[in-house]
Amino acid sequence: MTMSKPYVVGIDIGGTNTVFGIVDARGTIIASGSIKTQKYNQVEDYVTDLYTELSRLLEQENATDKIMGIGVGAPNGNYFNGTIEFAPNLPWKGVIPLAQMLSDRFGIPVSLTNDANAAAIGEMTYGAARGLKDFIMITLGTGVGSGIVINGQLVYGHDGFAGELGHVIIRRTNGRLCGCGRTGCLEAYTSATGVARTAREFLEIRKDDSLLRQIPIQDITSKDVYDAAVKGDKLASEIFDYTGTILGEAFADFVAFSSPKAIILFGGLAKSGDLIMKPICESMERNMLAIYKGKVKVMLSELKESDAAVLGASALGWEAK
Amino acid sequence: MTMSKPYVVGIDIGGTNTVFGIVDARGTIIASGSIKTQKYNQVEDYVTDLYTELSRLLEQENATDKIMGIGVGAPNGNYFNGTIEFAPNLPWKGVIPLAQMLSDRFGIPVSLTNDANAAAIGEMTYGAARGLKDFIMITLGTGVGSGIVINGQLVYGHDGFAGELGHVIIRRTNGRLCGCGRTGCLEAYTSATGVARTAREFLEIRKDDSLLRQIPIQDITSKDVYDAAVKGDKLASEIFDYTGTILGEAFADFVAFSSPKAIILFGGLAKSGDLIMKPICESMERNMLAIYKGKVKVMLSELKESDAAVLGASALGWEAK
Repeated sequence: MTMSKPYVVGIDIGGTNTVFGIVDARGTIIASGSIKTQKYNQVEDYVTDLYTELSRLLEQENATDKIMGIGVGAPNGNYFNGTIEFAPNLPWKGVIPLAQMLSDRFGIPVSLTNDANAAAIGEMTYGAARGLKDFIMITLGTGVGSGIVINGQLVYGHDGFAGELGHVIIRRTNGRLCGCGRTGCLEAYTSATGVARTAREFLEIRKDDSLLRQIPIQDITSKDVYDAAVKGDKLASEIFDYTGTILGEAFADFVAFSSPKAIILFGGLAKSGDLIMKPICESMERNMLAIYKGKVKVMLSELKESDAAVLGASALGWEAK
Repeated sequence: MTMSKPYVVGIDIGGTNTVFGIVDARGTIIASGSIKTQKYNQVEDYVTDLYTELSRLLEQENATDKIMGIGVGAPNGNYFNGTIEFAPNLPWKGVIPLAQMLSDRFGIPVSLTNDANAAAIGEMTYGAARGLKDFIMITLGTGVGSGIVINGQLVYGHDGFAGELGHVIIRRTNGRLCGCGRTGCLEAYTSATGVARTAREFLEIRKDDSLLRQIPIQDITSKDVYDAAVKGDKLASEIFDYTGTILGEAFADFVAFSSPKAIILFGGLAKSGDLIMKPICESMERNMLAIYKGKVKVMLSELKESDAAVLGASALGWEAK
């Protein structure tokens, strides 16, 4: 990274908003902006407005000629061909060659990957994974995503779709229906919606009192479960134990695959602290093969959540070609 | 590989025998020999005799000064430090610095890894995986081992112990006890001993006739199951279906991790052909996430079984330092 091009741009495309920022080599976001993803039925209109808004930001920061590359994190983003493929939560259907569309418009190299991979790259460049060559990033949000780093390199697989660890089967018998159409996926239990579902199951099956019974059962969110657990609610706390135990079981299997030095958690659920970390670590250690015991750290992301998506995407910009 | 050092040596250390061979760049075994591993209670005596026998072979082939490196495949072999660590089936206990002991004796670089990793390297160098950058090797023998290749590199993990896919948990409820002390491991179902165990379970629970009922139940081996299935025995054939279905379930999860182009099977059970391949492929496709369907080949090793172990180990010799 030469001083003549000291910045990169990170773009995080979410179903609701697209956030973008200008980032320096130390991982400081110099300036940022956003547009509403869901406003655009046509991806061409989206790219036009994104170009206008981002260009304005670049001019304002006197950075127009100082951008090394643009990195994009997007759901179902494919690193190999720079496309977004059949993303269920975006307004544009089919295969969208977004990296090409953006580099045509800006005349700057663009690199694109999925959001969890972007988070892993961000963590490796600016966060808890600095200096780590082997780790797994697990994003616990509406869904469960993953970015796997082996020997210092992100794992893309032969087709760019490696690392769908939210969709390993953790319950083969009577497993919950997952959004992917299969049953028993990790995501169906340990995403924010999975936690809310566990709450509803617990409240329906059990008779004991709980703060959660004050909320209409269909409205309960993982945030409600967290709030109740923090106030000492026993049932809410057991929901975290249940969730963490399942994550630990899954992590023990992930370790048998790539033997990482650390598993790093990111996203809303990860912020629940010991409530989720304790059952995860206990379950992972209990379920691991002997040769791995005591070797794998479970850590929280060190990126500020509001910045992480943009930082993660921007880190890709340094290597964009 | 310069023409002045046109050969490597491959050493495959098994619990019973140690086989070694001189191999050229095309993967032809020029000459080979063996000693009995289990004869040696002291690893020093073992190394002395191995040195004597291998030196004699090298002289006989006029190859003493033509060896680029020595590659060793050994159970519980650690690539990073060249040690064999706590191998339950070898006579030497604790941590054995075998690569160092051999390179001290021969004055040639020695590289060591576990037997399944050696098989993967062999397959990549000489076999079915030539040209593949992303594949998983599964060895189906007395145990179930694996060697994972991502982006053209073998996955060792942070500690050299990555790739214990025989020990992912495939049955979380009422799982079979595994040799590792845990329950429900893939190995407990799909190793040769796992198949024999399935045969005993089926014969005890079911009442239908089978050729296998002519054999004392405790003596049944996976080979007996194969022989019966080939003769059209329905129960034997269903044992293969059961085994293949479980392997396919596991493979579907492996694919969600590294999205390989192929999964390559090696070892006794793999030689059962369609009896095992058909249920594996059907089960894998049925259990995979939609984005992976129809993309992953399940293939058989192309290495002759008698040569594979030595060839796999020898392939490591080219890169030994």
